[in-house]
Amino acid sequence: MVSKEEQNSSSSFQFEARLTQASLIKKILEAIKDLVTDANFDCSAEGLSLQAMDSSHVSLVSMVLHAQGFEMFQCQRAVSLGINLASLTKILKCAGNDDSITLRADEKGDKAEFVFESQSQDRLSEFELKLMDIDSEHLGIPDTKYSAVVEMPSSEYRRICSDLGLMGDTVRISVSKESVKFQVDGDIGKGSVCLHPSSVVDKPTEVVKISLEEPVDMIFSIRYLNNFAKAAPLSDTVTLSLSKDFPLQVEFKFGEQMGYLRYYLAPKID
Amino acid sequence: MVSKEEQNSSSSFQFEARLTQASLIKKILEAIKDLVTDANFDCSAEGLSLQAMDSSHVSLVSMVLHAQGFEMFQCQRAVSLGINLASLTKILKCAGNDDSITLRADEKGDKAEFVFESQSQDRLSEFELKLMDIDSEHLGIPDTKYSAVVEMPSSEYRRICSDLGLMGDTVRISVSKESVKFQVDGDIGKGSVCLHPSSVVDKPTEVVKISLEEPVDMIFSIRYLNNFAKAAPLSDTVTLSLSKDFPLQVEFKFGEQMGYLRYYLAPKID
Amino acid sequence: MVSKEEQNSSSSFQFEARLTQASLIKKILEAIKDLVTDANFDCSAEGLSLQAMDSSHVSLVSMVLHAQGFEMFQCQRAVSLGINLASLTKILKCAGNDDSITLRADEKGDKAEFVFESQSQDRLSEFELKLMDIDSEHLGIPDTKYSAVVEMPSSEYRRICSDLGLMGDTVRISVSKESVKFQVDGDIGKGSVCLHPSSVVDKPTEVVKISLEEPVDMIFSIRYLNNFAKAAPLSDTVTLSLSKDFPLQVEFKFGEQMGYLRYYLAPKID
Repeated sequence: MVSKEEQNSSSSFQFEARLTQASLIKKILEAIKDLVTDANFDCSAEGLSLQAMDSSHVSLVSMVLHAQGFEMFQCQRAVSLGINLASLTKILKCAGNDDSITLRADEKGDKAEFVFESQSQDRLSEFELKLMDIDSEHLGIPDTKYSAVVEMPSSEYRRICSDLGLMGDTVRISVSKESVKFQVDGDIGKGSVCLHPSSVVDKPTEVVKISLEEPVDMIFSIRYLNNFAKAAPLSDTVTLSLSKDFPLQVEFKFGEQMGYLRYYLAPKID
Repeated sequence: MVSKEEQNSSSSFQFEARLTQASLIKKILEAIKDLVTDANFDCSAEGLSLQAMDSSHVSLVSMVLHAQGFEMFQCQRAVSLGINLASLTKILKCAGNDDSITLRADEKGDKAEFVFESQSQDRLSEFELKLMDIDSEHLGIPDTKYSAVVEMPSSEYRRICSDLGLMGDTVRISVSKESVKFQVDGDIGKGSVCLHPSSVVDKPTEVVKISLEEPVDMIFSIRYLNNFAKAAPLSDTVTLSLSKDFPLQVEFKFGEQMGYLRYYLAPKID
Repeated sequence: MVSKEEQNSSSSFQFEARLTQASLIKKILEAIKDLVTDANFDCSAEGLSLQAMDSSHVSLVSMVLHAQGFEMFQCQRAVSLGINLASLTKILKCAGNDDSITLRADEKGDKAEFVFESQSQDRLSEFELKLMDIDSEHLGIPDTKYSAVVEMPSSEYRRICSDLGLMGDTVRISVSKESVKFQVDGDIGKGSVCLHPSSVVDKPTEVVKISLEEPVDMIFSIRYLNNFAKAAPLSDTVTLSLSKDFPLQVEFKFGEQMGYLRYYLAPKID
């Protein structure tokens, strides 16, 4: 094994980074590929990030992987890798969940390289992906203080969105001190699921927590919330942050150090 | 917790009933929703029952849930709830298997209410389903003494119907003292599966039992038998009751006290 | 139980054979039914064998089950059973994996009989399959000494073919002393998976072994290699045998004594 220093200095690539487990990248891609077709992966000294509107320009995806979360990370100059997510999915399918993954890009910027190595090192896979030019304006997302912040199990979030989606197109999310309530009103009738902050805290991953400045009551498209639920495998919990007349933020954190995947969705007018 | 007495007396509903586990109702619905589109759920002091012809008017479904099988059951006046089973399926999908389920209907009779509560009581779901007017004549099913009664594992029943259904449209069921035989004759050839009453009785759920007054030999549509097999998750065993020129009865019991789901199918003429 | 001798002498069938576990035959059929529509099962004193081109006449399937691998095997005169594999699949679906399976054919040769018996002997299934006349010339497969022979886990083989098949239509297989490399070049980019002979040999089923006379470098249609991978459940390992300008042989062995399933595929010209 060479040391991190040596690896960094010896690289002839503009950008090179290695993660111990390919599964994280695979899950991130699963979480965004149905929402976004093509996206720029922005590589800088801070890390790897991505920001994209979904194809119907209704919701926004924002992903950040911090440099310190990588096993190895070096970036001589900031570079944007324009990638078709369906193509990247095909390549990542060739990586085992426990393979290490190395991502590289050189100066020419016409292709990205992916190297997957099995833990036993008996299996080495190398791929080259052609890059694309993708026009994208980077939207500044203001750092808001939200009126209501709800932390809940991501499996519960996924289930509620999926279940209520059978009954209607929109869901009303109401947060009070006592509960967060998801309500739907459809052709066959109406319904609601109401979660109370956990009384007993056996398993941290089953906890519901509510931080409230002000009660909120907002309406959103279930279809998009459902789409965001594809990120559930990335984290045991999800955080919903809401403020009146402001886009909802749905956040999945990849552990403390690694980074996060955030979705934003504008409310519907009642 | 309030006592059963209190709950009953305090109810302002014509009909209110609670089951500890939603899974029973979910499984019943799975077992009939592909056969029947709309059905009246008849609520009376005796319990909850349903009787319906399948949409092609070939087979009959009859379900009974006895009042004493419920955790709480009160019915001030008999009432029929006309329900679209596809809509009910959507609502029941929102109930966890271990949630308790409460069903309510008030005097107006235009909607039914469903309440699902998780065991930890941190999650409460409430739904309102619009009711329908469904014309239905209640058929009297004569209480026959059948010539042959076969008890067998419901998984075996399901498998035989599914396997033989690949080879032909009808199955000949022949019951003698020694065996029950399912025969099919199709384009690619013919076949039979023959079960003998179990010699060794290790697992009660693997037992085949035959009670015979008179040997029978009758032909049925496999398609319907296959449809009935969707009730297999409701019970480890199924009972087939046959008499010459009489509809076959296929019964799945929900434990001794709870009730049963029965299907009836007229034989085909040879 | 009657002895093997008695069973053999008492049979009134041209051909009769019994296997203790139906699962072997079921898996063989799964492995060839998508490649071959109809095939002659050739029964002789040596055993049961099958040879067939796939329906587009590009690849060849060759299966051998040795007589000594059967629990009982008797063949009075060599006979060919012309069988539609889709029909046989329907019949074999009725056999449990742990059922014994008996195959019989009489002199008339218009049908084959299959008997499945459960281990407890409480369940007996009998099927008759109509036979077909199938024209087929038996191709002699020369017994070659291959330049390169690679033994690898069949699960790894299946995965590589499936993964690389997402990126292109053909794969280049290069075998050297140090490694076997699978390369693909497609619209979205290119890639390779490289396996090294196992350094540590913990699990025999994870071993990669290379026997080399001469390095080879050949191109094949991924679609067919993918089809061959359906035989993976038959054996933990697969053996690829290659010689320049010669069809690739992909072999799955059913244990030492039982027999094998081999596929042959001509290389593509570069």
